[in-house]
Amino acid sequence: MRVRLDLAYDGTDFSGWARQPGLRTVQGTLEDALAVLERAPVALTVAGRTDAGVHATGQVAHADLTAAPDLRHLAGVLAAPDLVVRSATEVPPAFDARFSALARHYAYRVTDAPPDPMRRHDTLGWPRPLDAGAMDDAAHLLVGERDFASFCKRREGATTVREVLSMSVTRDGEVVVVRVSADAFCHSMVRSLTGALLAVGEGRRAVGWPAEQLARRSRDGGAAVAPAHGLTLVGVDYPDGAAALAAREAATRRVRA
Amino acid sequence: MRVRLDLAYDGTDFSGWARQPGLRTVQGTLEDALAVLERAPVALTVAGRTDAGVHATGQVAHADLTAAPDLRHLAGVLAAPDLVVRSATEVPPAFDARFSALARHYAYRVTDAPPDPMRRHDTLGWPRPLDAGAMDDAAHLLVGERDFASFCKRREGATTVREVLSMSVTRDGEVVVVRVSADAFCHSMVRSLTGALLAVGEGRRAVGWPAEQLARRSRDGGAAVAPAHGLTLVGVDYPDGAAALAAREAATRRVRA
Repeated sequence: MRVRLDLAYDGTDFSGWARQPGLRTVQGTLEDALAVLERAPVALTVAGRTDAGVHATGQVAHADLTAAPDLRHLAGVLAAPDLVVRSATEVPPAFDARFSALARHYAYRVTDAPPDPMRRHDTLGWPRPLDAGAMDDAAHLLVGERDFASFCKRREGATTVREVLSMSVTRDGEVVVVRVSADAFCHSMVRSLTGALLAVGEGRRAVGWPAEQLARRSRDGGAAVAPAHGLTLVGVDYPDGAAALAAREAATRRVRA
Repeated sequence: MRVRLDLAYDGTDFSGWARQPGLRTVQGTLEDALAVLERAPVALTVAGRTDAGVHATGQVAHADLTAAPDLRHLAGVLAAPDLVVRSATEVPPAFDARFSALARHYAYRVTDAPPDPMRRHDTLGWPRPLDAGAMDDAAHLLVGERDFASFCKRREGATTVREVLSMSVTRDGEVVVVRVSADAFCHSMVRSLTGALLAVGEGRRAVGWPAEQLARRSRDGGAAVAPAHGLTLVGVDYPDGAAALAAREAATRRVRA
């Protein structure tokens, strides 16, 4: 049966999602634990391939298993307090964690105050005051279906067109939170967008500058990529129902693959 | 001059507040850094002597220094990302971080859901569902000036009378938060009170049981002490003005010392 896994992890001590020989990764850790339960190799497909140091509160993956694992049993086998499987549920065979996804939601936390030591693992410290209002104005100019080549690490032949569904910046006390939702993200896109917004927030760049960078369709303008540890994948949206899942998967594969 | 220091720390990797030979403690780490700046030994007095593993977002200490330290310089000497001095301000000589305090505020976080990996260092995981409403009812019965001997680690000759100013339990999504304020706390008091409330929350004890334990004025009833890592010192209140500070200090020393 196809099983959907909803995951949360502290990315601090993982070398990212993707399995790599000799490194502790989320995929490797979770596939190995599921293989113990299944007594056979397990392959996971994930909604968001997070980089080293990036966290998740709402990551989604799928695997084909003989049964949905018991969460307590799985936690015992995982023995990883920084990786929690929050639910494991049977889904229609048409569900594909990557290709059925309608939208991914990320949040980037940064503080311009002395940082809260309890949140230092998921919040970037910024040495200068940030104008969240200016950052929010700049963010709104980035919404829409555009070619995000200026904010993507180049990958030969792949499209860099993405639809940013919403992007906003709010201040919650001493923490400024950048929230961005898109149909999908290219590599390092959220951290590159955040880097551009931080330049606006500290007054080094004008509100229109990130949108100007976007229009250039080239990385040469040089917005810095914000550090990984401030970034969290907070959720993934899927259509309801098997027919809609299958239609979405087919459409996405056509465009992105 | 007398300097008030407002501190936050992640208690995970500290052996508590109090300096101990050969161990990494908050007091030892901060006194050593201040001594580098002062080029002389520094002695700190603190509002709440937190145990090993207990955190603080609003700890207060004082020291007599030649000048209020520059926060950025102090952070550089500390080189401890888990200990942040949020402010350092000159105060009247009558200010005593311990004896001038009117009230200490603590919060204890516990979750009965699969824990958020990012908050595992300051949130206790609980394996059974908790009834926050029953815990709140039980907490209200503990408010007032009472002899808290049932919830204090015995210390020969010292009074165990304390005034609990407020105590409440609220559920914030998947996290249950116990908040308690008192003029002062005896050793392990918050964790013992929380342990009693957890027994109520999971339905193992009646709502009136913690208050019955309180009335016994003896630890023999055996409420378990909740683990340290769920506990955070969130703030300390002081009177305004030098005369009020001095009056409070004199009154407190008379009663508690």
